[in-house]
Amino acid sequence: MDITSLSYATRFDHVSGSAIREIFKVIAQPGMISFAGGNPSKSALPDQMVSELASDVLREDGKAILQYGATEGYPPFLESLKEYIRTHFGIQAPAVLPVTGSTQAMDLLCKALINPGDRIIVENPSFLGNLQCMKLYEAELVPVRSDENGLDPDHLEELIRKTGAKMIYTIPTFQNPTGRTLSLERRRRVAELANQYGIVVAEDDPYRDLRYRGQDLPPIKTFDENGWVVFLGSFSKVISPGLRVGYMAGDAGIIRKCTVGKQSTDVHTANLTQAVVDQFLRRNLLPDHIKKISADYAVQCSRMLDHLSAFPGEVRYTRPEGGLFIWAELPENIVAKDLLVRAIEKKVAFVPGTHFFVDGGHENTIRLNFSGSTLSQIDQGMDILKDLIINEMKQ
Amino acid sequence: MDITSLSYATRFDHVSGSAIREIFKVIAQPGMISFAGGNPSKSALPDQMVSELASDVLREDGKAILQYGATEGYPPFLESLKEYIRTHFGIQAPAVLPVTGSTQAMDLLCKALINPGDRIIVENPSFLGNLQCMKLYEAELVPVRSDENGLDPDHLEELIRKTGAKMIYTIPTFQNPTGRTLSLERRRRVAELANQYGIVVAEDDPYRDLRYRGQDLPPIKTFDENGWVVFLGSFSKVISPGLRVGYMAGDAGIIRKCTVGKQSTDVHTANLTQAVVDQFLRRNLLPDHIKKISADYAVQCSRMLDHLSAFPGEVRYTRPEGGLFIWAELPENIVAKDLLVRAIEKKVAFVPGTHFFVDGGHENTIRLNFSGSTLSQIDQGMDILKDLIINEMKQ
Repeated sequence: MDITSLSYATRFDHVSGSAIREIFKVIAQPGMISFAGGNPSKSALPDQMVSELASDVLREDGKAILQYGATEGYPPFLESLKEYIRTHFGIQAPAVLPVTGSTQAMDLLCKALINPGDRIIVENPSFLGNLQCMKLYEAELVPVRSDENGLDPDHLEELIRKTGAKMIYTIPTFQNPTGRTLSLERRRRVAELANQYGIVVAEDDPYRDLRYRGQDLPPIKTFDENGWVVFLGSFSKVISPGLRVGYMAGDAGIIRKCTVGKQSTDVHTANLTQAVVDQFLRRNLLPDHIKKISADYAVQCSRMLDHLSAFPGEVRYTRPEGGLFIWAELPENIVAKDLLVRAIEKKVAFVPGTHFFVDGGHENTIRLNFSGSTLSQIDQGMDILKDLIINEMKQ
Repeated sequence: MDITSLSYATRFDHVSGSAIREIFKVIAQPGMISFAGGNPSKSALPDQMVSELASDVLREDGKAILQYGATEGYPPFLESLKEYIRTHFGIQAPAVLPVTGSTQAMDLLCKALINPGDRIIVENPSFLGNLQCMKLYEAELVPVRSDENGLDPDHLEELIRKTGAKMIYTIPTFQNPTGRTLSLERRRRVAELANQYGIVVAEDDPYRDLRYRGQDLPPIKTFDENGWVVFLGSFSKVISPGLRVGYMAGDAGIIRKCTVGKQSTDVHTANLTQAVVDQFLRRNLLPDHIKKISADYAVQCSRMLDHLSAFPGEVRYTRPEGGLFIWAELPENIVAKDLLVRAIEKKVAFVPGTHFFVDGGHENTIRLNFSGSTLSQIDQGMDILKDLIINEMKQ
């Protein structure tokens, strides 16, 4: 029988794959200036340090690292991670689970909680990968309004009452793709609403350490009284995304379900990568490393913002205090997907904003990443973008 | 609101977590002789070699290894893996996907194919982790009869016709937990039935390189004409389970769906662990390593079989030609779970066979692993088990 007669699971009916990951393939050409990724800069990747740490941990605990590990995590890392979450974020969590990148935390949380048709309230736009994750669990995504201070808690409360949603998914700090940050007061309010209505908050906070201006804000999780908030963390932006080490912290019952889900998902996260990150924590290497890369990213961010200030006044954009992304809204008549085609011809790439919206649309928006480009690439690429946009506006 | 009011997804209604992983926690005591795991022996784990390879790959391609990678795999590994699958297994597969241990291959395959209520035909007993995986996708598991030559193709055909099953899950070589191997003729027949009825075969083959006697048999996949067989492979038993590197090979459409599923599951498998395994393949280190560990395991296997031949005649057991497990059926009146309690008191552990059956039962069966124990541990542990069983038989 021909294999084309095979039918796939209905969960794929409305999921065709990450548009961004497809764009990555198209733009993987020499000489391309890419504002498309969410990648750390090359110089931010501590290859020398990882090499030393890997060699140290394999010498000291090689047999255990190569053997099957516990789903609950490589024991030394679980220990240092708990301490890190407590001291670095001020989070008191009854349970912690190391995962294979924080994307897996979202996958496990959906596996644990979401039945087909359950509603999840999301920022709109939001992180594409996790939108796809929630769609694969056949959740109904309910967009909540946002402004420059993050999601609107009054609208959130209205939606919770109206939809009986099971979960809220939020990126409160330097949001992907907008770069916006949820204000202190709203953080407290989100935690209160979660507790009041009994709704789980997935607080996805991978960018928080990359702050270039302003004051650190405590995680929503620190205002959580009864365990409704699950904190999803990542070492992808502060050490390396290629190592795939993240974690989730929260209520013991929720983490236990996620652990059972993980048993049959990948058994456990690779011990070697957990052990390397463990050494970063134990040797207290993160503060200096974060200071160094944040200083670089701050300059790259300012440079891109400087360029944007010289764009036509009709182009509106966010001014993030940290993270990796700037979000821009172009004049209504410009279709970002078409602009991208012309930009790629001139060796510049970005991501059309439409991909980050639950129902598409918003064709005139774009996401710009500054961390993956040198200053001269930013100068060159932004000049090209400006010219292309001015040209489009004349059409 | 109290978090105990939280309701979990219905897919967890009949899944409580891996009983084996729970047993592991109980038996993790100094001095325990464990026949419970499926672990490579300590001496089989190439920690020195992995240390050198990790340091080499980080020196040569460190920046790319620490950066985000493609969901499709770390490019050099994808290349060497395709070549390995072609030459080592004789498999011509249109598409290959590296995964985070072959457990993830099963998870992605279920994600791609299985709707709640779909039927999957499985050997009974079978590998607990994947049974749990299929249950979490709310598949209905349909047990097929087996004998010393593996699953019975006539019964398989009858079940396919009767149930309209979507998939067959089989471990054809040195099966977990029984140690049995599917005969050559039956392999051909399974591939034919898959093609005839349009049913996907998940061929899980992690043990095939650990052969101590007899002739290698070609994978079912080599008899597959139209892409209905998906081959799931692993480096856990021949290099290291702690690295979490496996793969799936098959039809391009199926692999594409699994790749989209992987985008929102863990984005990609850690580049570092893929790069280490890549070096094993490129430097052709596997043949010698497999020869060395197989020679050791062969001796351990024979030793355990020698002991079993001195057990009371009522104890029946398999005589595997390879792999990691021996399966034993004790006299009907012996409850393996109770026996385990008494064995643990005497510092010996195994896994009660009931856990491997779709609907439990078979309380008088046990799975014995020989690879994780030294010869003197096997001598000591098997003597204790024999005495305990003889004692039970007198009750």
